Amino acid sequence: MRTVSVFGSTGSIGCNTLSLLGAEHHVKVLTAARNAAKLADQAIAHKAELAVIEDETLLPELTSRLSGTSVRATAGQTALIEAAQEPVDWAMSAIIGSAGLAPTLALAGSARTLALANKESMVCAGELVNAKCAASGCQLIPVDSEHSAIFQALAGQDSKQVRRVLLTSSGGPFRTWSLAQMKEASLADTLNHPNFSMGQRITIDSATMFNKALEVIEAQQLFAVTSEQIDVVVHPQQIVHSMVEFQDMTILAQLGSPDMRGAIGYALHYPQRKPLPIEPLDFMTLSRLDFEPPDETRFPALRLAREVLVHGGLTGTVFNAAKEVALDKFIAGHIGFLDMADLIAYVLDRLVEESAVQHSTEGLDIVMGMDKSARDIGQTWRPT
Amino acid sequence: MRTVSVFGSTGSIGCNTLSLLGAEHHVKVLTAARNAAKLADQAIAHKAELAVIEDETLLPELTSRLSGTSVRATAGQTALIEAAQEPVDWAMSAIIGSAGLAPTLALAGSARTLALANKESMVCAGELVNAKCAASGCQLIPVDSEHSAIFQALAGQDSKQVRRVLLTSSGGPFRTWSLAQMKEASLADTLNHPNFSMGQRITIDSATMFNKALEVIEAQQLFAVTSEQIDVVVHPQQIVHSMVEFQDMTILAQLGSPDMRGAIGYALHYPQRKPLPIEPLDFMTLSRLDFEPPDETRFPALRLAREVLVHGGLTGTVFNAAKEVALDKFIAGHIGFLDMADLIAYVLDRLVEESAVQHSTEGLDIVMGMDKSARDIGQTWRPT
Repeated sequence: MRTVSVFGSTGSIGCNTLSLLGAEHHVKVLTAARNAAKLADQAIAHKAELAVIEDETLLPELTSRLSGTSVRATAGQTALIEAAQEPVDWAMSAIIGSAGLAPTLALAGSARTLALANKESMVCAGELVNAKCAASGCQLIPVDSEHSAIFQALAGQDSKQVRRVLLTSSGGPFRTWSLAQMKEASLADTLNHPNFSMGQRITIDSATMFNKALEVIEAQQLFAVTSEQIDVVVHPQQIVHSMVEFQDMTILAQLGSPDMRGAIGYALHYPQRKPLPIEPLDFMTLSRLDFEPPDETRFPALRLAREVLVHGGLTGTVFNAAKEVALDKFIAGHIGFLDMADLIAYVLDRLVEESAVQHSTEGLDIVMGMDKSARDIGQTWRPT
Repeated sequence: MRTVSVFGSTGSIGCNTLSLLGAEHHVKVLTAARNAAKLADQAIAHKAELAVIEDETLLPELTSRLSGTSVRATAGQTALIEAAQEPVDWAMSAIIGSAGLAPTLALAGSARTLALANKESMVCAGELVNAKCAASGCQLIPVDSEHSAIFQALAGQDSKQVRRVLLTSSGGPFRTWSLAQMKEASLADTLNHPNFSMGQRITIDSATMFNKALEVIEAQQLFAVTSEQIDVVVHPQQIVHSMVEFQDMTILAQLGSPDMRGAIGYALHYPQRKPLPIEPLDFMTLSRLDFEPPDETRFPALRLAREVLVHGGLTGTVFNAAKEVALDKFIAGHIGFLDMADLIAYVLDRLVEESAVQHSTEGLDIVMGMDKSARDIGQTWRPT
């Protein structure tokens, strides 16, 4: 029996994680932000010991839905962190955004294996997460398809012999748009692309390649590589999930159907590879894979990410906070599509020296303080 | 200091192997079939202990070229096998054709690590080579780029969790030819393709995909997979050297520039990956990778290989011997391009039952006897 907790169980990563659990897994904790009904259903179906709802006002609903079952119910931020401190064989950290930071850190101290789907943890506090894992002996396994691919390509290899990691990117919905088109892109343009149906913020992150910038920063923290050792390759088909080049010029690549259960299942069964309910790749109908260099003029996000890689410290926190402000302003219709990167560049420029010498290992308060400074400066930015 | 021997040192694999040796390598044995001048030069340059020339009539020339040096010279088949029985840390088996069989078997008993470039050893006597390696503890590492890729993709993975191995093939010079064109293809057509400049026999093997058929048979012996677990994918760019699909539907692929020093260097430094003088892949100019299914109507070689996989035993020996006869007859102008596969099919058909129940583990004499039977039957075949 392996004990398992899923933080953020009602989102798509959480639901897919639960769908892969088997008879050998015993569920300890499930958590959700606000969806008490779904959380209760999941907790009952998976015979969880504890269900935690972040929004305290929803505790009565959760308790009522769980009455007559053996599942305990708690609520609020303190309860969430306490639940994350429960020792467990395997935990999934899939809470979205900076709300996932504190639970991830607690899980890094209490889980034997931590599957990490929360990007912000590594972008804003990678040094701290790594230090926590090193101290507790927790095995960190990334669940983003790109980082999972790199992790898989590195299995059984000597990471000191890595020359480069190559993150692939779909290029997003504006891959073939001109700079002039992108300048005029509206929120509706950004959200209405036929090939992409995701949430609003993640779609904007994809269209701007902010998402890829976060992944580049995350890769540096996960795989201890320098700025020169990270490259992004645009690959529209999203079949090659990412690659590692070694010093003998060999490249190992991980390929698969675009299905998040691949990376989740890998993390769940690691170091085993158990059968997963995923479509195999069919090279007979696949026909071709395309690759092209990313255009840093149209996608300045990648240039900004490189600034973060070079300066380190808490510059990742600054990037992430400024990006959140930029998205708020674009969604509100106050700034244009290309303004978003200008806002981030402005904030980074103001804070780069100060943030580069601060480290998340000094504590989460330092991180949250820098996050606030970046948001405040971001609010002052105006298009020129 | 690691002791190293190179069998077949004057061919392209041998020369490339020598070019990768460093100060940490001490050369014990170098061998060549007939090129005494080059062998002597190599032996002197690499301070070898012993140089062996297979053609005994060339011993005086070799001895004279080595006079005044510390390199000993011997000649002939017995001397070759004796040299292969010398204990050594690392050996390269790169003698071409069935002449490489006996030295490979001897090396499997005396080398700690055996880099294998001789296809026929695994095709004709794979069970015997595997048994020899198991008995002596010799680590076998394939040097064909396809098998090296599979070996690399399997490093650190559990081979019991493999779903399929996918061998890539350039498709050869006739990839886009029609069946009617291929029927009329002359020796000159086969040899004059602009993108392919190799030796005569290997070019025919490439154009017919006999070469890929041998590799399929070799893969079964090297990786202990069934017929259902081996597929061939045509990939004209030859950048993806081969792939392994696991039961979780993940594919790990090895990519690189088409440079044989990649696989040789990997085998030389295994399990390390040391820097090699190879061009890195440039995804910014690479632009696309194509894949297509092989056409078994135009390339019956793959269908015949599958027959060998299913029947096992010494059917690989039969395939290889019949193929050699077919090439002789095509080169002599006695049969047409598509007749070659018909001849092999005819011989396989006559010998499949008898050869399937015989095994190379019974001894090399049994293998050579089956080889002769197949050649004799092949000689009797006439186009209908």
